Amino acid sequence: MLDHIDKVFVPLAASSRSDVEIYQMWEIFKAVNAKVKAGGKVVSLLAGEPTLPPPQAAIKAAQDALSSGKPLGYTEALGIPALREGIAQFYQRRHGLEISSSRVAVTVGTSSGLMLAFLAAFSAGDTVAVVEPSYPAYRGTLKAIDLVPYRLTTNASTGYRVTPEMIAALPAQVKGVVIASPANPTGTMLSAEELRAIYDLCQQRGLWLIVDELYHGVTYDRAAETVLSVGDDAIVINGFSKYWGMTGWRIGWLVLPERLVSRIEALHGSLQISAPTLSQLAGIAALNADAELTPRVEAYRRNRDKLLAALPRWGITRFAPPDGAFYLYIDVGDFTDDSVAFCRRMLDETGVVAAPGVDFNTADGHRYIRFSFCMDAAIIDDAIARLDPWFRRLNRQ
Amino acid sequence: MLDHIDKVFVPLAASSRSDVEIYQMWEIFKAVNAKVKAGGKVVSLLAGEPTLPPPQAAIKAAQDALSSGKPLGYTEALGIPALREGIAQFYQRRHGLEISSSRVAVTVGTSSGLMLAFLAAFSAGDTVAVVEPSYPAYRGTLKAIDLVPYRLTTNASTGYRVTPEMIAALPAQVKGVVIASPANPTGTMLSAEELRAIYDLCQQRGLWLIVDELYHGVTYDRAAETVLSVGDDAIVINGFSKYWGMTGWRIGWLVLPERLVSRIEALHGSLQISAPTLSQLAGIAALNADAELTPRVEAYRRNRDKLLAALPRWGITRFAPPDGAFYLYIDVGDFTDDSVAFCRRMLDETGVVAAPGVDFNTADGHRYIRFSFCMDAAIIDDAIARLDPWFRRLNRQ
Repeated sequence: MLDHIDKVFVPLAASSRSDVEIYQMWEIFKAVNAKVKAGGKVVSLLAGEPTLPPPQAAIKAAQDALSSGKPLGYTEALGIPALREGIAQFYQRRHGLEISSSRVAVTVGTSSGLMLAFLAAFSAGDTVAVVEPSYPAYRGTLKAIDLVPYRLTTNASTGYRVTPEMIAALPAQVKGVVIASPANPTGTMLSAEELRAIYDLCQQRGLWLIVDELYHGVTYDRAAETVLSVGDDAIVINGFSKYWGMTGWRIGWLVLPERLVSRIEALHGSLQISAPTLSQLAGIAALNADAELTPRVEAYRRNRDKLLAALPRWGITRFAPPDGAFYLYIDVGDFTDDSVAFCRRMLDETGVVAAPGVDFNTADGHRYIRFSFCMDAAIIDDAIARLDPWFRRLNRQ
Repeated sequence: MLDHIDKVFVPLAASSRSDVEIYQMWEIFKAVNAKVKAGGKVVSLLAGEPTLPPPQAAIKAAQDALSSGKPLGYTEALGIPALREGIAQFYQRRHGLEISSSRVAVTVGTSSGLMLAFLAAFSAGDTVAVVEPSYPAYRGTLKAIDLVPYRLTTNASTGYRVTPEMIAALPAQVKGVVIASPANPTGTMLSAEELRAIYDLCQQRGLWLIVDELYHGVTYDRAAETVLSVGDDAIVINGFSKYWGMTGWRIGWLVLPERLVSRIEALHGSLQISAPTLSQLAGIAALNADAELTPRVEAYRRNRDKLLAALPRWGITRFAPPDGAFYLYIDVGDFTDDSVAFCRRMLDETGVVAAPGVDFNTADGHRYIRFSFCMDAAIIDDAIARLDPWFRRLNRQ
């Protein structure tokens, strides 16, 4: 009876694993919305979202599908065969690699690819090394599915690169390694030799290697290398959000070792059924849109160069090497030790908004901010014009 | 040194939690594809996918968004405010309920809604009661995120209903209950009184109650009741796949107790970012398409009635009550104790394909098959014409 009464008053509680951090970036985003609502002007260098629409061919493919009168039903769990084949050919074209389309799994954006890869590779309670600074959803996703992040913290001394020495020094309980190249927020890109050294060490130590290659295509001085050119036993994550500018379409892919394919098929079938059909059809068309997309990367380069030229004027001398992706991750430690407050102040005083480093790096993100530069050139120009006098004032204080 | 050599030969293995069952339905689907490829004719009553396109208003909204030249970027993690508001109003319109749009989270189909609900409510290792027969992804999703299904097996004696007595008899380790109304594959629908009794028992015992209401709108004799009319402390799963016929758009929603909203927001932000933007825009328009959709439900009813009239001719007298959804779950135990072999034989000999019960019910699914009837009437007529002589022969044997 007592037992019964106890139970009557048990409140239904949320699970602890769902206590995932909300990014500070979202909080800044709310401040942006409030400012806009109050009639303020905001110049946003906050998000990694290209402001141009998707490639024309992708839009046309989606429009054709919509006007076909077909039901646009589920697809096979691993994706439409023509898209898997197109992605395999993309590795042939861009990297000269023969990748079987049977190893390609189409996912609901790279977010879902990450989650599926983590589920397939790791058991609850496993520790997984994650490069930092990095995309905050790595840590959120690990936590949500009961994995323990081990922070593989990089810094300016190695150009924010994960080194083979760092892999060699990982404690025994680590079961896998998550890296990105080019990386968000640093733009750091690993060479084929660096990828090979990391891959070999992971193989020797029995560590799953997961490489986020989402920013492939968005590179400035040399093309990005894929870990697939080193070996078949890594999990590659990629998608249409960045180079193709198709963020809201939620369409990505995994390239998997053969023995994981049926696992991902079953997981995807249960957890998502299949990726959005219109987005898959648009993706097939987008794979051949290089002629439209290459000039966009040149525009990002011009944006980058304008910001790089401005940084010395602003008294900023320490920043990550922007080899690829469309971000500048800069050390503002001379001005603040609270990057969230710094971003809010910048927004209040200039209308320009950047992302606070704390989302990307729990170690010293409080000294960093990230500018995104995938916007129209006019937005970058406006931001620089607003920040020039502001930083001049800051440097005088 | 020995330790090092050991590690060199550790093969990278898939996790045990990713060992999710592949549905037998997919295996049948492969047999279908092989038959079609070989020039055979297939009349498919296999999938729960309406063969009509989405509502015109949804298609138009998507076309307008595509031709707007806008980037179709990410949305807020919980969904476009106008969609969340539209869904809240839908509960007002259909059920006379005031539901705050702040409690609505837009998800990547109901699949993703299920996963997010399970993650928010349960910790790794928790036991969760799941009605059987039921949609197989409940079990696959639970397994993938380290939850243990407790089978709440229903049968013909209760019209495949979950009864309050079954909830009262759950063992102490059970932390939550997953039910569906109308249910797949049985079509069983729970009354407001039944939902209230189950809800109250769950509250008293401190059990999370998750109700899959995806087949709301597809009902034949009375409208479906939502558990939200009983209380606010259940998790409701719904989406645009069935009544609206938008399966491949991957767009669904959750209605949550207020205290879970920020948990789902953080989980969704990490695990998916946001639901597909085009699908959200189409969803806003689809919410007002009842005039186009009501006749479809009438067409499903005619399909159902034709099949119900055929069953006695086929010697089938035991089947679940098709109150809603678009399935007939029938006992073929007089003909077989291997429903997979039975479905393959039916496909081989008649070209008609049904789903084997084993996917839905581990207890006695080997005696059951499921016919889906959300297809064009001509497909149903063709199936019946083919099955009439076939069952006549079976009954003679």
